[in-house]
Amino acid sequence: MPGTLYLIPTTLGQGSELSAILPEQARRLAATLRTFVSEHPKTARQFLKQTGTAVALQEIRMSTLDEHTRKEELESLLQPLLDGEDVGLLSEAGCPAVADPGATLVRLAHARNIRVVPLVGPSSILLALMGSGFNGQSFAFLGYLPAEKSERIKKIQEIEQHSLRLNQTQIFIETPYRNQQLLQDLVATCAGETELCIATDLTLASERISTRSIAEWKGKLPDCDKHPTVFVLYRRPADKAVKKATARQRK
Amino acid sequence: MPGTLYLIPTTLGQGSELSAILPEQARRLAATLRTFVSEHPKTARQFLKQTGTAVALQEIRMSTLDEHTRKEELESLLQPLLDGEDVGLLSEAGCPAVADPGATLVRLAHARNIRVVPLVGPSSILLALMGSGFNGQSFAFLGYLPAEKSERIKKIQEIEQHSLRLNQTQIFIETPYRNQQLLQDLVATCAGETELCIATDLTLASERISTRSIAEWKGKLPDCDKHPTVFVLYRRPADKAVKKATARQRK
Repeated sequence: MPGTLYLIPTTLGQGSELSAILPEQARRLAATLRTFVSEHPKTARQFLKQTGTAVALQEIRMSTLDEHTRKEELESLLQPLLDGEDVGLLSEAGCPAVADPGATLVRLAHARNIRVVPLVGPSSILLALMGSGFNGQSFAFLGYLPAEKSERIKKIQEIEQHSLRLNQTQIFIETPYRNQQLLQDLVATCAGETELCIATDLTLASERISTRSIAEWKGKLPDCDKHPTVFVLYRRPADKAVKKATARQRK
Repeated sequence: MPGTLYLIPTTLGQGSELSAILPEQARRLAATLRTFVSEHPKTARQFLKQTGTAVALQEIRMSTLDEHTRKEELESLLQPLLDGEDVGLLSEAGCPAVADPGATLVRLAHARNIRVVPLVGPSSILLALMGSGFNGQSFAFLGYLPAEKSERIKKIQEIEQHSLRLNQTQIFIETPYRNQQLLQDLVATCAGETELCIATDLTLASERISTRSIAEWKGKLPDCDKHPTVFVLYRRPADKAVKKATARQRK
């Protein structure tokens, strides 16, 4: 019998306690495993310490899977599973295989008939969507926007149109030191009635989640420079309740 | 000071233990709240019992927010928050405000400057995405597909084209008693090399997650009739590692 590949979520940043972001069963399971695949062994070891693992750190086998891992090497990462051992896949932050190289390993595991079990944990994408108050019946995560300014502005226009046409919430991220630039471009580019949720430092003590219309954000942009932030944009069909509420608040 | 609106995830089905799906801190927090908004008070009370709440059930104020709730009523649901009390928003299953009416309340809370705190918990959408092994850098959740057959088939074709054109993973659901029909339509409509992950009974003891190409699924469709299932579709650009792996498995 091959082992099981467990997808184990980790904290979204320093200072977050495991009891706030990981169910007890997942923590206990992680504390019993001996073989892990992660992007950065150092962060993975820090996480394992937090689980209170009973396994001595020198007995733990830690393999690396990052953007430099060649496809041929993936096979060897699966070998312990084929030998009957359970393996934990860890991400650098949050849920493995969502916006990291882990997905390729998961796909190959399916092809080898290895059981894949995703565990519950924090996803900044999903927490931002929940916290935004936008349409959760239809949403898209787009990853990073283009770094080059004119391309980024074109992309923002596309996203806004897409949201309106499909009635779809649009979620995206930016390298933290470019957050302010992106915010300025969003406010300069989007229509006043387009809504934007800015979700910063999710699950951390400094967490801030705020949804406003672009018109309301103008001149009052928060400082999220160098803080991990998820941007959620929604161009909603006319909705009187929210419009009325917003109008009242402005007085 | 207004209270905080906590978005509290619940189990994805019966027989799931809270310690498997909810971080300890979230469980403890839910156990201290006295005021809740939920879709179905009965399910909400069952959940609260599981948290081991110290508050007597008759002291708990439980308001209903469902598709019949009128916009004017939303204001009264926020009143306890404006009076300084913390309130828990519960979904019928999984994360509130993702595919349920809770989002309207969250949006109004932002307009009233009420702090919104989403807690970590199970999302069948995100667990299916993690478990699929597909592209997690770009994905879309589309909700339910059309119930009428010719419209549904047209939609499947659109989804497949969309996935290829945008290199975007496509996630959708169906009313459980229509799962088999949808599966048959997917297999009959999509190209053989399009990949499909079928994720059934997520987080439950009967959980099954399997990713195969449409060609591989043909004639071997699983039985997920009446079981909650998430469908994840991906038409990938040529990827030798997976193709080779799949070819080897077929022998």
